[in-house]
Amino acid sequence: MANVANKVSWSSKDDEGRPGESTPLLNGSPSASPSPGLSRQLSQNNFFRIDRLTTVNLDDDTAQDQDGDSSTYVSKEITHNENLLSLKYESLDYDNSENQLFMEEERRISKIGVHVLEIKRWVVCGFIGIFTGLIACFIDIVVEKLADEKYKVVKENIDKAIEGGGLSISLVLWASMNAGFVMIGSILVAFVEPVAAGSGIPQIKCYLNGVKVPHVVRLKTLMVKVLGVISSVVGGLAVGKEGPMIHSGAVIAAGISQGRSSTLKRDFKIFEYFRRDTEKRDFVSAGAAAGVSAAFGAPVGGVLFSLEEGASFWNQMLTWRIFFASMISTFTLNFVLSIYHQKPGDLSNPGLINFGRFQSEAVQYNWYEIPIFIIVGAIGGILGALFNRLNYCLTMFRIRYVHRPCLQVIEAVLVGAVTATVSFIMIYAIYTYDCQPVGEDPIKYPLQLFCPDGEYNAMATAFFNTPEKSVQSLFHDSPGSYNPLTLGLFTLSYFFLACWTYGLAVSSGIFIPSLLIGAAWGRLFGIFLSNVSAVSTWADPGKYALMGAAAQLGGIVRMTLSLTVIIVEATGNVTYGLPVMVVLMTAKIVGDFCIEGLYDIHIKLQSVPFLGWEPPEKSHALTAREVMSYPVTCFKKLEKVGRIVDILSDTSANHNGFPVVDENHEPDGDNVGRLCGLILRSQLIVLLKHKVFVERASSNLAQKKLQLKDFRDAYPRFPPIQSIHVSQDERNCTMDLTEFMNPTPYSVPGEASLPRVFRLFRALGLRHVVICDGSNGVIGIVTRKDLARYRLHKGQLEELEMAHT
Amino acid sequence: MANVANKVSWSSKDDEGRPGESTPLLNGSPSASPSPGLSRQLSQNNFFRIDRLTTVNLDDDTAQDQDGDSSTYVSKEITHNENLLSLKYESLDYDNSENQLFMEEERRISKIGVHVLEIKRWVVCGFIGIFTGLIACFIDIVVEKLADEKYKVVKENIDKAIEGGGLSISLVLWASMNAGFVMIGSILVAFVEPVAAGSGIPQIKCYLNGVKVPHVVRLKTLMVKVLGVISSVVGGLAVGKEGPMIHSGAVIAAGISQGRSSTLKRDFKIFEYFRRDTEKRDFVSAGAAAGVSAAFGAPVGGVLFSLEEGASFWNQMLTWRIFFASMISTFTLNFVLSIYHQKPGDLSNPGLINFGRFQSEAVQYNWYEIPIFIIVGAIGGILGALFNRLNYCLTMFRIRYVHRPCLQVIEAVLVGAVTATVSFIMIYAIYTYDCQPVGEDPIKYPLQLFCPDGEYNAMATAFFNTPEKSVQSLFHDSPGSYNPLTLGLFTLSYFFLACWTYGLAVSSGIFIPSLLIGAAWGRLFGIFLSNVSAVSTWADPGKYALMGAAAQLGGIVRMTLSLTVIIVEATGNVTYGLPVMVVLMTAKIVGDFCIEGLYDIHIKLQSVPFLGWEPPEKSHALTAREVMSYPVTCFKKLEKVGRIVDILSDTSANHNGFPVVDENHEPDGDNVGRLCGLILRSQLIVLLKHKVFVERASSNLAQKKLQLKDFRDAYPRFPPIQSIHVSQDERNCTMDLTEFMNPTPYSVPGEASLPRVFRLFRALGLRHVVICDGSNGVIGIVTRKDLARYRLHKGQLEELEMAHT
Repeated sequence: MANVANKVSWSSKDDEGRPGESTPLLNGSPSASPSPGLSRQLSQNNFFRIDRLTTVNLDDDTAQDQDGDSSTYVSKEITHNENLLSLKYESLDYDNSENQLFMEEERRISKIGVHVLEIKRWVVCGFIGIFTGLIACFIDIVVEKLADEKYKVVKENIDKAIEGGGLSISLVLWASMNAGFVMIGSILVAFVEPVAAGSGIPQIKCYLNGVKVPHVVRLKTLMVKVLGVISSVVGGLAVGKEGPMIHSGAVIAAGISQGRSSTLKRDFKIFEYFRRDTEKRDFVSAGAAAGVSAAFGAPVGGVLFSLEEGASFWNQMLTWRIFFASMISTFTLNFVLSIYHQKPGDLSNPGLINFGRFQSEAVQYNWYEIPIFIIVGAIGGILGALFNRLNYCLTMFRIRYVHRPCLQVIEAVLVGAVTATVSFIMIYAIYTYDCQPVGEDPIKYPLQLFCPDGEYNAMATAFFNTPEKSVQSLFHDSPGSYNPLTLGLFTLSYFFLACWTYGLAVSSGIFIPSLLIGAAWGRLFGIFLSNVSAVSTWADPGKYALMGAAAQLGGIVRMTLSLTVIIVEATGNVTYGLPVMVVLMTAKIVGDFCIEGLYDIHIKLQSVPFLGWEPPEKSHALTAREVMSYPVTCFKKLEKVGRIVDILSDTSANHNGFPVVDENHEPDGDNVGRLCGLILRSQLIVLLKHKVFVERASSNLAQKKLQLKDFRDAYPRFPPIQSIHVSQDERNCTMDLTEFMNPTPYSVPGEASLPRVFRLFRALGLRHVVICDGSNGVIGIVTRKDLARYRLHKGQLEELEMAHT
Repeated sequence: MANVANKVSWSSKDDEGRPGESTPLLNGSPSASPSPGLSRQLSQNNFFRIDRLTTVNLDDDTAQDQDGDSSTYVSKEITHNENLLSLKYESLDYDNSENQLFMEEERRISKIGVHVLEIKRWVVCGFIGIFTGLIACFIDIVVEKLADEKYKVVKENIDKAIEGGGLSISLVLWASMNAGFVMIGSILVAFVEPVAAGSGIPQIKCYLNGVKVPHVVRLKTLMVKVLGVISSVVGGLAVGKEGPMIHSGAVIAAGISQGRSSTLKRDFKIFEYFRRDTEKRDFVSAGAAAGVSAAFGAPVGGVLFSLEEGASFWNQMLTWRIFFASMISTFTLNFVLSIYHQKPGDLSNPGLINFGRFQSEAVQYNWYEIPIFIIVGAIGGILGALFNRLNYCLTMFRIRYVHRPCLQVIEAVLVGAVTATVSFIMIYAIYTYDCQPVGEDPIKYPLQLFCPDGEYNAMATAFFNTPEKSVQSLFHDSPGSYNPLTLGLFTLSYFFLACWTYGLAVSSGIFIPSLLIGAAWGRLFGIFLSNVSAVSTWADPGKYALMGAAAQLGGIVRMTLSLTVIIVEATGNVTYGLPVMVVLMTAKIVGDFCIEGLYDIHIKLQSVPFLGWEPPEKSHALTAREVMSYPVTCFKKLEKVGRIVDILSDTSANHNGFPVVDENHEPDGDNVGRLCGLILRSQLIVLLKHKVFVERASSNLAQKKLQLKDFRDAYPRFPPIQSIHVSQDERNCTMDLTEFMNPTPYSVPGEASLPRVFRLFRALGLRHVVICDGSNGVIGIVTRKDLARYRLHKGQLEELEMAHT
């Protein structure tokens, strides 16, 4: 490793190397900014939109990370694509900084104090469950009321038009009502809080993975999300209200656990102990689980979702608390809805979507059906991959051309109107083919259209209905309720509508549309099977609708264990466990062969440094020394204030962690300082703000000793360095970092392989790993980006480019 | 920290310090062996029995760890109690030794090779599922056949005796049949394989926690376990056949994944890649999950059980594979049993125990029942704690007085006879009080006794039946099937019988007896409630029987999430999720207030160095330097063979990992070598066996290069050092450890707090953590025992004694 400079730079002004830039070991050219071929100025996507910044924006999570770049910030154009890795995203710090203040607090805390803390955690989880359940109730009730109102108006109009003519006016009425609702939602999303777009699941995945996504857990986001999802569902888009619940739960968790809201500018002075990344992320896991639980009535599925997406280390008590939040959430929803529906105490509808109870005879399956389930899974995998591929192309198009908020609103409104039109045409098109007698079906507004009296249009069950109800009727309507042509046309049109809808600047879930598409073709498949005379006894279309729904959803999102459990819990019957699992497994294998899951595509397109479960294959060839960033800006234990301010203000380097090296050690020939601690930018900022200088301490003995509380008060939005005034006199003072640095940061030797560093980093949720030489000298530092940068591409390890935007 | 010697000893003969012995920082006296007050020579318990060793016993897992102690091995008397920590238990090594051989192999492996490995893992998991399911079938069918036969004979005899007199002969017949079956099982356990005693769940917990329990995953153990559990269930003991399934699944997994069996002395030469602790433990997790799955028809519960007990790092693909094994296992069981019961393809009985389908109206619960569920949970917690306390005293008694195999057999036979007698007396005692009409009940052999014609004795439903069937009838029999007196007497007698039975030298599960006790008092509680007129409409005794069963089981074993899911899955209905969770949570809180869970008690009594989820509270006051073992025996990169052999043969030190230090580094004044690697005893043994000496390599160029395969072939029973002959000439040779040592062992500075070391150790599943000073010099080593040694006792951190036995 002769080409690796073994130096630690001591002077801040000399330090021109950026930690984000690595030695070009794999691609041979030192390219830190996107290479010419890749540097098309792709525009900002609405998906993970970085907020429009001003230089000093105290109200911005990312201010401290971005302050340095404000001068070079090129309007709103951001280069994002899947071959880049953005340096904008910071890591969460799941590792406690065990400095002297922390240790003192830990030692001071009494046994009762520990119990009180534990009880507080349970209380917080209880509240998370209650509020998540209430939000879900609110969304459900408002959507139901508004949608009822809308369908009533449209139905009356259509019924009138059938008698008196003027069906085109009905179409216009329907389309404009939809467009109106969608417009409200998309204006909110596009102009007020772009991060509330979509389901929020990719963002929560990133957060739980340890990436700070700006604005993702803010109250404003929650409000936009809730109103947005109501608008889009009522607006008749091909979306569900379930996905956004996960995001909503996460925001509620973050808000309650911190005991304050910056949107409301209120600090309730409670739960102050929880104001750090470690605790906050645990609660956000609980919130996400509570969200899943309320959405699907699946408390165990919710816990597994949180674990699948976020667990770095499984902890029994934490999991148990998460389960508690989930249970409370589904119970609250169920209880409140039972009162609302005037059946108080009827606890049989635990989720926003309920797949309904499958009859015992339909629940049965035979072992020889398993190959058929595998075929269903494969179809789901292929269709899911097709969906993802189309959506990928669409998203690339949107990143390039549809980046301005007003264009986004126009697109959303257009989709709303087109959805209504397509539905209308579909219903109209099959009016003579598929009329069904009005029975005990769950449709509230059976559209008669041109059907004989006492019958209704079957296509309208699917289109003239909220998607949740349509899924239910596809699962449970008696065989023969749907004509194959109806199902075929519906699948086709809804597939493209849903694909177009995902990624719009509206709050929307992909779960329900996927289930609906899958249920439609699954039922079609079931009808086809039951026409084969030999199997007609067991080929229940409802059963195959369920399998198709699972296959389609699995093919799109590629979740595994948690999705199986969610579907089983939503079905309310464990007997389907094995078939659902077989279907999901096949769908995932087939789908993964073609393209990644939808969430992963969107995460990659946003250049988020996301860490997978395992290091990329073939990465054993790389060592820490090869992937680390160097030279490292280090501090001494006793450091000049001026140097600290200069380094923190340095716009070219965007360091967040600084190794502290031994000042007493006589530098060897190669001038490497020995590691004796690690201090974070946020800690230095607080120290500077409180002017904790050695000289002041001696001159003013009465000065209040800095406490952990001071750090917590500043969390999570530490002020940028520019907002802290340091006089020329103060610049010559000294700061003693000993008490505040983490004296035992994790470090590995330079010879450690990438997988080894990766596992350490991932298992402990770290933010920095210091790389040391044989005598503990600091030679480099590894952060999330250094690890996320490598991926396997066509059998070869490939290095992603770094982008500063 | 002036009292910590900063030395690394270089000469083996000087090295008298034992790594197991720590500086007495907490209790003030340097006691490495049990202090006089504690050193009563407690005898060997049958629970985690250490096998009777000979000095060189190649067929023994622990040979390498214990060889040194054979001379000092004091007959069979072992000092075990909960205040000791045995040094006998070694850790598993979940961290790959990333030496040059490993890296070369990893780099050589092609993309296809990676896929083939992955497919092999799935295949192994599939086989684990299939074989676990088949074992469960075998147990189920044999138990059913034999129990049927037994009950038929006894019933005929009783029926005859009622007519002709001589009921005491029936009692003798029944008691002696039971005693006979129990004797077979207990002879097998006591004389052939003591580790097969009990449910095996504590042993599997320890294994998944990372502790090597001798013999626990051997084929012989499996065979004894299976035959043993059949004998004890047929012998009418208060045991279930479900718990042992978990152990059986684990053994199957270990066997299949290694592709060989030392009991059969066969090596199938397959799956050789999986011959290391990392892979093996993953498969054992899958096996345990498959066991739970087959036992309770609870595949998700199985996965959660594995995670709750064993996960150190959650891995999505691993979890998914575990789930696959679970699914296959329950499917196999269900499928085979459906054929056996002549209903092929009927997949509605996925487990050994099936709680039966609760009717929809009974499934309902009202929100105002939740406080009642909390009361049920509290009762369960108290009764569970009482059970555990009694069993603790009993176990202490057994450890002291009932340690010889023949005594154990006698005790077991006695319990078998007493159980039959008590049952008989109970049935006889209530014969006039509780006669029920023969209906559609699931009892196969309704005992009429002195009841009128067409009626049967209700107590006999509970006693004259396999416990699984009794649980079902308590859950589902119509209200009024049981007289409160019957239930009360049954609860009382079964409680003490079950308590006496657990810990006998027989294979037995505690799940079913707990469920049965709980179901009995739960039903009693339900009857009491329904007599309160206001609540009689909803207080279904069956529902409260289920809650009572959950409460009692939770109060005894204190499992959380996994138990909730297991019960919900066994019930087949997710609606009960919240009440079951409330009940289990209350039972755990109340129970934990009194005494630990049953499994933890037994683990502690065996002095196993078990690591919890979190470091003990208040341990922030300790640093790595205070808990580490020192001085450490280190090797140089180029080391004399003689010194290696001497150190490995040293009977006083039982080291398993040796830091390798830099030989080129000029020793400072304090003579600390700089860490540059870590080598394991097992690796050194293989090197010595293959005589990988520098001198031989140069003299004989054709010598085969050592490969990872050679290490895998020796896994897991590396020969003891005494079996390797090293001539005097060879003693003067040199060994180059560079290629074989792990060049990047995890190390932490001496100032790191105990919780920090604990988390690193636990999250990564380590076996050794090297403690270094500021310039990377080795000052100590931390192993599992150094971490497990501390516990919170009465608000103070307490240090356990170390025992060499």
